[in-house]
Amino acid sequence: MRTLREDPAEAELASHRLLVRAGYIRRAAPGIYTWLPLGLRTLRKVEAVIREEMEAAGAQEVLLPGLLPADPYRTTGRWEDYGPNLFRLKDRRDNDYLLAPTHEEMFTLLVKDMASSYKDLPLTLFQIQTKYRDEARPRGGLLRGREFLMKDAYSFDIDDQQLGSSYEKQRAAYQRIFNRLALDFVICSAVSGAMGGSRSEEFLSPSPVGEDTYVVSPGGYVANTEAVTVFPPEVLPIAGLPVAQVRPTPDASTIELLVDVANELSPRPDRPWQASDTLKNVVFALTSPDGERSLLVVGVPGDREIDPKRLEASLEPATVEVATAEDFEAYPDLVQGYIGPEVIGPNAPESGIRYLVDPRVVEGTSWVTGANKVDHHIFGLVMGRDFTADGTIEAAEVREGDPAPDGSGPLSLHRGIEIGHIFQLGRKYAEALGLTVLDENGKSRVVTMGSYGIGVSRVMAALAEANHDDRGLVWPATVAPFDVEVVVAGKGEELEETARVIAGDLDSAGLDVLLDDRRQASAGVKFADSELLGIPIILVVGRGVKNGVVEVRERQSGEREEVPVERAAEVIWRLYSRLIDAEIARANLKDDAQSASSSDNSAMEQGES
Amino acid sequence: MRTLREDPAEAELASHRLLVRAGYIRRAAPGIYTWLPLGLRTLRKVEAVIREEMEAAGAQEVLLPGLLPADPYRTTGRWEDYGPNLFRLKDRRDNDYLLAPTHEEMFTLLVKDMASSYKDLPLTLFQIQTKYRDEARPRGGLLRGREFLMKDAYSFDIDDQQLGSSYEKQRAAYQRIFNRLALDFVICSAVSGAMGGSRSEEFLSPSPVGEDTYVVSPGGYVANTEAVTVFPPEVLPIAGLPVAQVRPTPDASTIELLVDVANELSPRPDRPWQASDTLKNVVFALTSPDGERSLLVVGVPGDREIDPKRLEASLEPATVEVATAEDFEAYPDLVQGYIGPEVIGPNAPESGIRYLVDPRVVEGTSWVTGANKVDHHIFGLVMGRDFTADGTIEAAEVREGDPAPDGSGPLSLHRGIEIGHIFQLGRKYAEALGLTVLDENGKSRVVTMGSYGIGVSRVMAALAEANHDDRGLVWPATVAPFDVEVVVAGKGEELEETARVIAGDLDSAGLDVLLDDRRQASAGVKFADSELLGIPIILVVGRGVKNGVVEVRERQSGEREEVPVERAAEVIWRLYSRLIDAEIARANLKDDAQSASSSDNSAMEQGES
Repeated sequence: MRTLREDPAEAELASHRLLVRAGYIRRAAPGIYTWLPLGLRTLRKVEAVIREEMEAAGAQEVLLPGLLPADPYRTTGRWEDYGPNLFRLKDRRDNDYLLAPTHEEMFTLLVKDMASSYKDLPLTLFQIQTKYRDEARPRGGLLRGREFLMKDAYSFDIDDQQLGSSYEKQRAAYQRIFNRLALDFVICSAVSGAMGGSRSEEFLSPSPVGEDTYVVSPGGYVANTEAVTVFPPEVLPIAGLPVAQVRPTPDASTIELLVDVANELSPRPDRPWQASDTLKNVVFALTSPDGERSLLVVGVPGDREIDPKRLEASLEPATVEVATAEDFEAYPDLVQGYIGPEVIGPNAPESGIRYLVDPRVVEGTSWVTGANKVDHHIFGLVMGRDFTADGTIEAAEVREGDPAPDGSGPLSLHRGIEIGHIFQLGRKYAEALGLTVLDENGKSRVVTMGSYGIGVSRVMAALAEANHDDRGLVWPATVAPFDVEVVVAGKGEELEETARVIAGDLDSAGLDVLLDDRRQASAGVKFADSELLGIPIILVVGRGVKNGVVEVRERQSGEREEVPVERAAEVIWRLYSRLIDAEIARANLKDDAQSASSSDNSAMEQGES
Repeated sequence: MRTLREDPAEAELASHRLLVRAGYIRRAAPGIYTWLPLGLRTLRKVEAVIREEMEAAGAQEVLLPGLLPADPYRTTGRWEDYGPNLFRLKDRRDNDYLLAPTHEEMFTLLVKDMASSYKDLPLTLFQIQTKYRDEARPRGGLLRGREFLMKDAYSFDIDDQQLGSSYEKQRAAYQRIFNRLALDFVICSAVSGAMGGSRSEEFLSPSPVGEDTYVVSPGGYVANTEAVTVFPPEVLPIAGLPVAQVRPTPDASTIELLVDVANELSPRPDRPWQASDTLKNVVFALTSPDGERSLLVVGVPGDREIDPKRLEASLEPATVEVATAEDFEAYPDLVQGYIGPEVIGPNAPESGIRYLVDPRVVEGTSWVTGANKVDHHIFGLVMGRDFTADGTIEAAEVREGDPAPDGSGPLSLHRGIEIGHIFQLGRKYAEALGLTVLDENGKSRVVTMGSYGIGVSRVMAALAEANHDDRGLVWPATVAPFDVEVVVAGKGEELEETARVIAGDLDSAGLDVLLDDRRQASAGVKFADSELLGIPIILVVGRGVKNGVVEVRERQSGEREEVPVERAAEVIWRLYSRLIDAEIARANLKDDAQSASSSDNSAMEQGES
């Protein structure tokens, strides 16, 4: 192995920087990494925990191919739905293949081949397997890769009740896995997205560098912002509202300027105009999986931005981009900056442009919005009287303090790394691919499915994010690549021999030992490397040997203890056992706490940090 | 799991048929398989043996990506050389990628990044990783797949001597691996092919269904037929040989007819003409990796066929096919069926057609061959007097009884499955990709490499080929998916409970236990399944339970023993230990025999069957 003194140029995140510097991984191509010996050992320990808990939950391990024929994915529509995220290729006979991004289709076909009766169910299969997604923006080393390792499990049940039970088993296994990995997590309501299906939850590891934002309410609502639904205001009476009026609003190119101009030229009698009085209409171009492009206008209160991830999640599997100059040229009724509802959606069916509004735009609300004429806005345009929309869309940003949709109080916002995702898929895949079994009455029944993923390599990134300091990595004992590092700190045969003897004793006692006996490296370099590597226990064999002592260091606490050479192995063994016991005790404690809490959609489960 | 009563339609080989029927693997696409629970367990046991021996040989495990950027493969020329066998694809940014067929380039770049001094060498890295090759004819289930599992190791050394030592270590590790897996093998001299490099040996498991043919001489020459070189006859004096004469040979469209016609119309005074007196010239079209097509004529004695695999191996990386009607139209001098040396090769440089002859066509040999005129041949055409060639080619078939090239006696022919291949690559990859280190004198030296592969999934096929009978698989204890199968043979709670208790005892004793407690299956079905599955020890819990006895069966020998219920676990544990000990003893015996024998190119090493 070799450590690097310099941070890799492309690494922004601590986990990425440290895993590369400490020699755990190396970049092979954008979003594609090589596992070096230390990294592979750590990965295998993470895998082992996942495998044990999957087996304990009654799932059987299989291994499906990474290179898959296109046909099953065509049948379910995902060949198209995945868009540019799918690696597609052809074989020598010009047949279409793909690199598996996930395996619902193939597992469905496998079980179709293996199960014929309700007696063969419930059945849960899992694999730990390489996945491929051609991410537009691979990021953070292992955090978002194009080739990555996943544990994916699939449950097959006769009905929704059995599915519910299989889902709960996987959910509980996930809690045990992350507890054992000493990885804090929250369970969030999530959107099902391209997977289809009904209930879906994400396991997020709280981290400021996480790509996901989730909300928590005091009453226990926890959800990914993508899945948050607006708590809609009540419908207001229309009768008596003043007639809408077009008024000049020069130089009102932003919401802020519009509010200023309105307050100056058309002051409101009761109070000043606010951004939340305005209705901002933003034009997007949608591309459906079959390649068709169409325009969509999204209307949100002017005090809120559109959240691209919420917008995308709402429109999946279509992809969305801001409308281009060409789009505006093709639709001259759309006056950029002054778009109003009259020229779009159900108000102007001939336009062919869909119009979706934020759920806060309820009947009886009155808005300042574009008058479809440069330098003019319309004031007092009333929803349900002066305009309507094709429907609502969850696309506006969620803000700190917004009310939880279930009335459980104001939301706070947090960031997290998605480490697991569980889905109740229902019958989408089984129906598309014809997976049926005979029920107790001999009747054919479509099987109902669940799908359960853990990003194994991403978990390693999350662990590194959660377990490091300014000197390097600080692995929990459960996943550390080695249990002990023995450092020869000084020159001479006596030191080397002492180190080898103790290392041998530790090895015989069943510990994984790394021996740093490099002769060309100084003690200082070795110490720095040992802190960079993050192995939980470091044994320093140095000058003290001539007085019969060596030094045991604990990486996390920094505690050091001089011990007699002949007691070193014993002391280390005890320290190691204590570290492992503490991790197990903490995991069990969390297990108890979590199983005591309910596991419905609104349960928040966060371990102590 | 589910077993099949019927053989799968596409399966020709016993290993393929049984692995599918017994529920070890399932076909997902041509040459692409899913590993079911039993198969995956067996595969992991094979992997474990390989991993242990690689580590014992000082190799460090890493894991490289399966999806690789094209550039390094362009640099070494293999992007083109691999031809249609490579799965190529593009990412969303239109960059070229490939699915790794083997990893020389990426390991070279990895070590370039990690090593800078001779002190960092010798270094051997290995991985157990999925490989992809778009085989034209995937075959035999796991035997020749398009997605398959390989162990590939790469050694990096400062000079040829160090490489020799690294190579010997891997070679010895391979012997231990296959001995431990109880898999007979021979070590054959092999051609390096597209890999480049000098010394190369294959490990073949003798099997009538093997795709490779190898030769063995009484004196210890062992080689793949592709690597056999002809023992060339001595040059003969030209002086005094009669002048060549064109003679009519009507209706001589085959060598056999030509010999008949010659004996009838132009009888030879001393003895009848034989097929070996004729020189058969066959026209091929070569396509070089850059796509250029050219003609090549291969001349071999008329009593020998051209062996397509020897021909291909001699011409790699170009691909070769029989010339087409269009080719003959383009070269009217080539009179099909009557081609003679005068119109090709150095005898007719203007033709642009290369001419290569079998090494038996030495100076002074005299031939009956085509006169480039329909219904005519030329008699007494003397090599070195009347014609020459551009060189020799090893393309003629090797026959039982041919002399070994090293003079060690007549060759016998055998078939085998290639389970391992080791190469001394030399500096080809290091030079192309700039892998150098500083030597003891501070000078930059190009690193010299070796590459060492084991087809892990193919080993499973070879094991199944070598270990089955007409009732099913018969696994060696080392790799069996379970150590014991407990069969509940009959109805009733007492039987089930007894089976569960014994299974629990065996499990506690550290054995892997499979419990067949299906209620819907008859005892007969369960017995048949247990023999199909091939687990080494079967415990039958049946009617005898009411008399306090169960039956222990050994799958391989078929021996059965009734034992008291309370002694069952102990008897099974002893039987299991005896099976494992016997396998270890046999492996050690072979190790000793092999390490006593020399390991030069001509050593044959075959274990007892």
